[in-house]
Amino acid sequence: MSASILISNDDGIYAPGIMALYQAVRPLGEVTVVAPETEQSAVGHAITIADPIKVRPVTRSDGFQGYAVSGTPADCIKLAVGELLPRPPDLVISGINLGPNVGISVIYSGTVSAATEGSILGIPSLAVSLATFQDPLWETAMQAVVPLVRQILRQGLPEHTLLNVNVPNRPVREIRGFRTSRMGRSRFVEVFHRRANPRGDVYYWLDGELQMLGDGVGTDVQAVADNFVAITPLHHDLTHTAALNALGGWCPPWPES
Amino acid sequence: MSASILISNDDGIYAPGIMALYQAVRPLGEVTVVAPETEQSAVGHAITIADPIKVRPVTRSDGFQGYAVSGTPADCIKLAVGELLPRPPDLVISGINLGPNVGISVIYSGTVSAATEGSILGIPSLAVSLATFQDPLWETAMQAVVPLVRQILRQGLPEHTLLNVNVPNRPVREIRGFRTSRMGRSRFVEVFHRRANPRGDVYYWLDGELQMLGDGVGTDVQAVADNFVAITPLHHDLTHTAALNALGGWCPPWPES
Repeated sequence: MSASILISNDDGIYAPGIMALYQAVRPLGEVTVVAPETEQSAVGHAITIADPIKVRPVTRSDGFQGYAVSGTPADCIKLAVGELLPRPPDLVISGINLGPNVGISVIYSGTVSAATEGSILGIPSLAVSLATFQDPLWETAMQAVVPLVRQILRQGLPEHTLLNVNVPNRPVREIRGFRTSRMGRSRFVEVFHRRANPRGDVYYWLDGELQMLGDGVGTDVQAVADNFVAITPLHHDLTHTAALNALGGWCPPWPES
Repeated sequence: MSASILISNDDGIYAPGIMALYQAVRPLGEVTVVAPETEQSAVGHAITIADPIKVRPVTRSDGFQGYAVSGTPADCIKLAVGELLPRPPDLVISGINLGPNVGISVIYSGTVSAATEGSILGIPSLAVSLATFQDPLWETAMQAVVPLVRQILRQGLPEHTLLNVNVPNRPVREIRGFRTSRMGRSRFVEVFHRRANPRGDVYYWLDGELQMLGDGVGTDVQAVADNFVAITPLHHDLTHTAALNALGGWCPPWPES
């Protein structure tokens, strides 16, 4: 039986990256596209509970049929698995995102969120991002996806694990291979641009850039800089186990005890 | 010098929970309130980059002055630290949320997100939730916050750690104390309610309930059920370290190598 592959993204169903992903994986299984109607970048792991979620069939003249969803990437995966597909897919793939999802930006990423949701639902999942904001070499990311999908369909993934894949924006021949990595320690250095509207009301635009902290050895950021496709296994258990052990006797007494 | 405490939430600046938090911590330092204008539940770690962020001074007749922000909890913390406060606060507290943030729901939580953002910015942070959706006993959560804040201001927290605090909705005298815990393994069992508008367009309401997986020993869920205030240390590094080690030789060869 052919593998069932669910694809989504956060750039929206009309983005070029999801078409590149579709074209890359179409030979590998039966592909269903369920993606946001509009761009949903930086939505983190949001879900839509205060509004209804609208679903609309979409036919892209340049390729696929799919479903456009008036919600977030996590909504798309929940809805596809819970309602639109006859059975859970064998694999969830989110992407191909225009822009890297490395270091702390993973926390804000809608692309990663779709794959996280897949892993929460117990489905092997990966998020794929192309590390550039301009002149994307989709072909390189497409080349990277195929062997990863083949391997996951054959071997699976460790339980409760998703793979966060970041592809350098270099020609295929310049890529040095795949490299497992960890999420780089980093933070955004925020810049708020303060403006006022004609009535004098103040508003801000959030801007900023990623600043790496500590050395980069073994990180996603370093792998991409070294022209490797970075493969970072992530999970959705946020417990800081080392801190939990360290906090053994930390708790204050209860006020009335 | 008095401690500087930044408070926020995801239920919005007019919610009763943030007023309870304000009243609990006001005696402990200089408190600034920067919170969403409107309810932002289930926004996950979203930030606002495609729209301007509006800020409006708010005076609540029943208590505090603060800033209402047209964005997410993470926006509030970024904006407060980067723009509104003269220097970074000594502590970020998010809450008091109406409803538990335990198990997998932590991933979707705007309340936790504000504290996560604080920890990313290097500030000791905690998220406080009252484990009920009705008849909230705010007094119990207020009693829980005070000794935690005192202890954090005195001792700090392990680096890159936030505390996710869940308070049982029981009278103060029935609480058995604080208990450190881990995020419980769980998933939502989704139910999508399918509807159609008068024109026949289909839409869905997302609904569902938390289902625990595995045993509950040591979890936030169990601690609350046992009438303890659950203290779960979280971090924002999503790397699945065990899987990273297990994936050592996992990578397929690069197509052209």
